[in-house]
Amino acid sequence: MQSFTPTPESIPPANVKYTLQLPEGVPVHVQPLNPLAFVLRAAQIYPKKLALSHPDVPYPVYYNYDVWTQRIQNLAYALIEAGIRPGDRVALIAPNSPVIAEAHHGVLAARAVICPINTRLTVPEVDYILEHSGAKFIIVDHEYAKLTQNAKVPVLVSNDTGRVGCPYEAFLSSGRRFSQEKGWAGLQWESNEDSAAALCYTSGTTGRPKGVITTLRGSYLAAIANAYETRMDLNSVYLWILPMFHACGWTYPWAITVAFAGQITLRTVSNNLIWNHLLNSGVTHYCAAPTVQIGLMSSPEARVVPRKVTTIIAGSAPTAQLLGDLEKKGIKAVHVYGLTETYGPSTTCYVQPTWAKLPLDERARLLARQGFSFLTAGSARVVYPPKDGEPDNVELVDVPKDGKTVGEIVMRGNIAMKEYFKDPEATRKAFRGGHFNTGDLAVMHPDGYIAIQDRSKDIIISGGENASSVAIEQELASHPDILEVSVVARPHPKWGERPMAFVILKTQAAPRWKGRHDAFAAELKKHARSRLPGFACPEWVSVVDELPKTSTGKIQKVALRKIVAKL
Amino acid sequence: MQSFTPTPESIPPANVKYTLQLPEGVPVHVQPLNPLAFVLRAAQIYPKKLALSHPDVPYPVYYNYDVWTQRIQNLAYALIEAGIRPGDRVALIAPNSPVIAEAHHGVLAARAVICPINTRLTVPEVDYILEHSGAKFIIVDHEYAKLTQNAKVPVLVSNDTGRVGCPYEAFLSSGRRFSQEKGWAGLQWESNEDSAAALCYTSGTTGRPKGVITTLRGSYLAAIANAYETRMDLNSVYLWILPMFHACGWTYPWAITVAFAGQITLRTVSNNLIWNHLLNSGVTHYCAAPTVQIGLMSSPEARVVPRKVTTIIAGSAPTAQLLGDLEKKGIKAVHVYGLTETYGPSTTCYVQPTWAKLPLDERARLLARQGFSFLTAGSARVVYPPKDGEPDNVELVDVPKDGKTVGEIVMRGNIAMKEYFKDPEATRKAFRGGHFNTGDLAVMHPDGYIAIQDRSKDIIISGGENASSVAIEQELASHPDILEVSVVARPHPKWGERPMAFVILKTQAAPRWKGRHDAFAAELKKHARSRLPGFACPEWVSVVDELPKTSTGKIQKVALRKIVAKL
Repeated sequence: MQSFTPTPESIPPANVKYTLQLPEGVPVHVQPLNPLAFVLRAAQIYPKKLALSHPDVPYPVYYNYDVWTQRIQNLAYALIEAGIRPGDRVALIAPNSPVIAEAHHGVLAARAVICPINTRLTVPEVDYILEHSGAKFIIVDHEYAKLTQNAKVPVLVSNDTGRVGCPYEAFLSSGRRFSQEKGWAGLQWESNEDSAAALCYTSGTTGRPKGVITTLRGSYLAAIANAYETRMDLNSVYLWILPMFHACGWTYPWAITVAFAGQITLRTVSNNLIWNHLLNSGVTHYCAAPTVQIGLMSSPEARVVPRKVTTIIAGSAPTAQLLGDLEKKGIKAVHVYGLTETYGPSTTCYVQPTWAKLPLDERARLLARQGFSFLTAGSARVVYPPKDGEPDNVELVDVPKDGKTVGEIVMRGNIAMKEYFKDPEATRKAFRGGHFNTGDLAVMHPDGYIAIQDRSKDIIISGGENASSVAIEQELASHPDILEVSVVARPHPKWGERPMAFVILKTQAAPRWKGRHDAFAAELKKHARSRLPGFACPEWVSVVDELPKTSTGKIQKVALRKIVAKL
Repeated sequence: MQSFTPTPESIPPANVKYTLQLPEGVPVHVQPLNPLAFVLRAAQIYPKKLALSHPDVPYPVYYNYDVWTQRIQNLAYALIEAGIRPGDRVALIAPNSPVIAEAHHGVLAARAVICPINTRLTVPEVDYILEHSGAKFIIVDHEYAKLTQNAKVPVLVSNDTGRVGCPYEAFLSSGRRFSQEKGWAGLQWESNEDSAAALCYTSGTTGRPKGVITTLRGSYLAAIANAYETRMDLNSVYLWILPMFHACGWTYPWAITVAFAGQITLRTVSNNLIWNHLLNSGVTHYCAAPTVQIGLMSSPEARVVPRKVTTIIAGSAPTAQLLGDLEKKGIKAVHVYGLTETYGPSTTCYVQPTWAKLPLDERARLLARQGFSFLTAGSARVVYPPKDGEPDNVELVDVPKDGKTVGEIVMRGNIAMKEYFKDPEATRKAFRGGHFNTGDLAVMHPDGYIAIQDRSKDIIISGGENASSVAIEQELASHPDILEVSVVARPHPKWGERPMAFVILKTQAAPRWKGRHDAFAAELKKHARSRLPGFACPEWVSVVDELPKTSTGKIQKVALRKIVAKL
């Protein structure tokens, strides 16, 4: 660890107490749930434990829990001093770095609502979100400052130095002075646990992004579930690969503190930085989408990890190839599923002891399923989607547990969003049948496991048969030369639609097929025919250098469909 | 495992669904917290996993999660058929056995309140509790049927056979018939998470026992904390030594199901049965007071356990001797603290990584402290106790973190009781200063750890100095010949009071001191003088064969004081 001295205002007083003011009228036996509780516990119990490292930057910083929690308090006071009132939204535009990690606690300590914005958006997109969210204050990382060029509210810039001279640091220091050293007791605990914790915008491929309101109660319970289901503890170190701006980092900014674990923030997702930390920094946990994981596993730095590492996979189902690669590196996969509307993960594919004996391919097929609601989530069901014209309170009917009948995944309970912000009509539609309607199509297997098939637009209607692009991708990915694959529908004069596969070859296989992509296409089709029904075999195969992806690593089928439309 | 066939009505239908009716008006994003959720999850995800074994009886039984959960449903329907309505109390008098484990879920599924009664009470004591609780229905184990001889409400007897012919089994079977196979959907989920889950009576050494009301929300959150803090998971097996009737078994009946773990019920606490299970049944977790643990460690069956075992210790602080003995056997101790009013455990002595290097004696001194509030508990503080005449809403003031100033432990939050049943005056007193006043005296160490000194009546005022009987016991217990020791005040003409020690010798040491107890007393006093200030050294030492204990293994100092009073 390099030498680093936090700003003087980051050092807590000797007599610090970690108890906030509780409003009158809260009964002795109730503490309104709030994920802020966790970092306060960590600072109280393990003050000198390393909470956050931000190493791979010109100005690295390292905060112990006591110092880091003081900074969180400073941020809360500074926001209040800047005029932020309970319920106000504070926008955050930053890559994974201390400022956004701190905001997940400090904004809540000011009883305000965190509104993280994707750093990869355009200025007009950011303008829309700033306008729609009504954010009163913006904190932006210097690299993304231009995104706030049209902002009509105060903008605070973080230079990501953690040192005197950075405007963000000056802001925190002003908070400490404003606190008059009343400490935590000068701040009030939010009495209503149903208050908003965050306002996260969906990346909505069609139309305007929607603002998802999550609550303090839900964030508290989701964070506990994520810590428990992934077995994080005092000795855990979480590596930030998933952007924190994505659904509040799936509540991991809080889950990490549930466990008193450490965290490492990386501004940029680069395979060699990640492997350096996996091999040398004691990392035990990270979250990432399969595409990111595939890149990691095929990176030249890849080695067997020196301790048990658990990776949380979501975004799409892991393939057998990927699960096998992870296993070979000593990395245990926990497959989870969820959406921004469900605080990120809310189901997990619980592993049955009997699966251990199965061959990898079969095990992977079982593990690729979305499974069951996790610890604190409510129910997740697969139902016949409500039809147009049916009342909003229609009684939803489960599809049979046959592994075949396709329905829609619906969820309800403490890990479902409260509403779409300022959009009662979208909320009403999303909550038909008293559940959150995910829009994800799935089957229910006889063993009760939910397995996603496709979003309805991802189904390929080939010769009157419904072909699942997800299932086709799973089978094509088993070809030894394929690194990554995505399948979409392409119009076909005879069959209506037929699957088209876009393929990235593995580095070592690419030279062999150079100039012979037709031969590869023929081989892949042959491979497909041995594993898939005729209507599901790709009619076209396009070898590409990269696939269009969202900021969270999901393949953008919309972009592929645009390519197909021009063919 | 012996062959056993559950009653036909215990077998769930093929199409079982684990979702209860949710009342109108519960928002999509809220599921009222209720620990019943956990066993339903377990049955859904791991239906064929062994949930409960009851092996050491003439009629052993073994239930998988699917079967066990059906029995829970049957119990709920049978109770409703018997006239039990939401909020009614159902009394339970049973040793650790399936009936009481089932009741912790089945009574809640009927939206009723479980009222477990200590099997070691007398008939008049049971009469008082039945009267005070207003229990509408009693379930009693055949061995304790005589305790209900004066009952004025229906009494259902369990013969603990799990087989046709037992009245309890007939009752469950009637529930299944009454359900009309509507299954879980025919039962309603309690919409108010602040509703009572349990009514547990304190063992109150003075005056009438008080009835502690705990809530569904508190039980849910306490169960999660107990599972998380003790790292229970799918592979865990919990051995029942702590009686389930004591504070609902510290919420472990639910915590076990959080983890999808197995449990083994033992009717009787016997060292050889316990060691048999520790060595041969895959046990990973058990709770027990230090006195029980001391007996276990000194038992001739004691061996090194063949896998990692975690023991949860509470009731009083473990001594260095005991911690050392546990370590030698491969058993990891988690020291927790709480009262019936805090759902059993609500603080734990979190271990600091730096302690690992310390010698056992020093480590034990640190581990013997009560520590910090655990995961879902609110705040635990040490404050100057409110004085008589101060208003109920007096602002409590923390004692300094000096490890010396004695104050009272107070707690508040989701793991504190709701009230004393039908006793607003006792509730008011217990809740002075907006916290539950435990009556336990403690200091706050500079590192923030709470350490119990004594209940105020356990303080020995010797020559004007306050001597802590707990601290004296800790030091005396380090003598190599002592198995167990308890210290109380005895009047002294010159010093006001002086400590008197009651000592049980180790089996191997007893013969050596036979007929020479005076010599042992002299040696122990010498041992004490090397470790304690003069006013804290015992003036008298009495070697005894056993110490008077409560049903939960706590030494009854009241009984020792009675002996002293007659000297």
